[in-house]
Amino acid sequence: MKLVTFDRDGAARLGAVAGDLIVDLCALATAAGETCPATMLALIEAGPAALDNVKRLMAAHDGAWPAGTTARLADTRLLAPIQRLPKGVIGVGLNYSEHVEESSRTMDTDRDMPSHPVIFFKPPTAVIGPEDSIVHNQAQTSQLDWESELGVVIGRRCRDVAPGDALDQVFGYTCVNDISARDLRHGGQWCFAKGQDTFAPMGPWIVTADEIEDPHALRIGLRVNGVTKQDGNTRQMIFRVPALIAHLSSGITLEPGDVIATGSPAGVGISYVPPQFLKPGDVVEVDIEKIGVLKNTVVAG
Amino acid sequence: MKLVTFDRDGAARLGAVAGDLIVDLCALATAAGETCPATMLALIEAGPAALDNVKRLMAAHDGAWPAGTTARLADTRLLAPIQRLPKGVIGVGLNYSEHVEESSRTMDTDRDMPSHPVIFFKPPTAVIGPEDSIVHNQAQTSQLDWESELGVVIGRRCRDVAPGDALDQVFGYTCVNDISARDLRHGGQWCFAKGQDTFAPMGPWIVTADEIEDPHALRIGLRVNGVTKQDGNTRQMIFRVPALIAHLSSGITLEPGDVIATGSPAGVGISYVPPQFLKPGDVVEVDIEKIGVLKNTVVAG
Repeated sequence: MKLVTFDRDGAARLGAVAGDLIVDLCALATAAGETCPATMLALIEAGPAALDNVKRLMAAHDGAWPAGTTARLADTRLLAPIQRLPKGVIGVGLNYSEHVEESSRTMDTDRDMPSHPVIFFKPPTAVIGPEDSIVHNQAQTSQLDWESELGVVIGRRCRDVAPGDALDQVFGYTCVNDISARDLRHGGQWCFAKGQDTFAPMGPWIVTADEIEDPHALRIGLRVNGVTKQDGNTRQMIFRVPALIAHLSSGITLEPGDVIATGSPAGVGISYVPPQFLKPGDVVEVDIEKIGVLKNTVVAG
Repeated sequence: MKLVTFDRDGAARLGAVAGDLIVDLCALATAAGETCPATMLALIEAGPAALDNVKRLMAAHDGAWPAGTTARLADTRLLAPIQRLPKGVIGVGLNYSEHVEESSRTMDTDRDMPSHPVIFFKPPTAVIGPEDSIVHNQAQTSQLDWESELGVVIGRRCRDVAPGDALDQVFGYTCVNDISARDLRHGGQWCFAKGQDTFAPMGPWIVTADEIEDPHALRIGLRVNGVTKQDGNTRQMIFRVPALIAHLSSGITLEPGDVIATGSPAGVGISYVPPQFLKPGDVVEVDIEKIGVLKNTVVAG
């Protein structure tokens, strides 16, 4: 199932995609004399039974949606799937081998493969949705760059997760664009360069975990103005999702709605000769197999 | 005024310190036929008028507290002043000149003074209160270290703040201990090493901004088991509070309840010869003039 947060008369509503329609899940539940969590975060926090209930409701009404419960996907403004991440985006750097190589050639990172996952955070204020714009503050940065990443949405509060249990903690998957102002790294730290407002586009929806049999067999790519810049596969991850969840949860309590951005394949802008960076008017698309396309426009700030 | 969050029969309550008493602000407001925000975050978000109202209520009843509105400070369990930080702790690294020098000598950081603030994040899950314990996972780290820091609590949602307007955005000040597992830095990034559960002790209270005429004239020190390890003054900051707020808000929207940990003076454990690190049983005290003492015990994890 594809779960969305969408705008309905100015309010953020929880929905599910059904063909070219969005079904308003609370409206559907009300029409059926039932209730449903009002937000994506509430749905995730409510646990597997709540998700099963949504699936049952959707199956029971498929193709015969009660009046007032649907909107056309094409006419609807999608918002970031989770409106306020519990701890922002948990970022993983240097997690694809060719990207480690290109980074060491063009930035200040090591050439050796990392021995442990390289972790950073983007604050909740950085997150935007699939129809929001990435703001380029030209007075501040001339190196605004892209990074297509598989986003893993955590479903349960967990600590010290064994790798073999890790995928049981996953609610679903989404696309993340780990926007980075390369010239705003200071003292080697990435959080300010990657953590600015609008630097974490996310969406267009969350695909529930049951639809992704193997998160390490997905083509992942990125286009700028229709031209392919990144073309990889999640099988190339150095630390795979179970290893990332095990590592993170060895020290940090993961919570429902946490999103781990699992790193970018090769082909970021700074790796091109000469380097390529984003500018106002550019359209950037993260495209992940079985998940979807996250498309954002760059605007001047 | 010193504002606390305290435990009352298992619930987190908002209070103010009055001598050796804690006044339960909602209970006081109710006794006066008024209302009060229920949490510290709600009070901060409610803005200056709400804080003025609390001050008026406290002044009106000073020394004649209605029955059931007070508890003895010594008998009360204080919690982290803010129970869930909006974006975790916004950390500033290498912000005292002597600490820059000692860090370059004992860690992998530059010897030069930073040209811009060095920013990292600790997630909300890292925050503990003044009576909670710092967990030392001995299987994971043998370099658990301390850093005493002035915490600046943001009072207003703001972006692109001019330095001259920055202190107007400050709700108050608290103590932060920026606990760091030096050997858990990976790929040069600090977030995992500094962001683990219990690595952000905070408190014991928030001192409102009106009581701190100059945040850059405060002795700041740290003791381990009663022995002084850090002894500095906030006047030694390289980037002062207005510069930090201006820099951060140039890219990141600051929100009510955000806490900026403004960096540590010299005297962290790794700088000693031989290095000194925390171990279970140690008692660590951050002591900041006009603010208070934040005291935490280290326990085995």
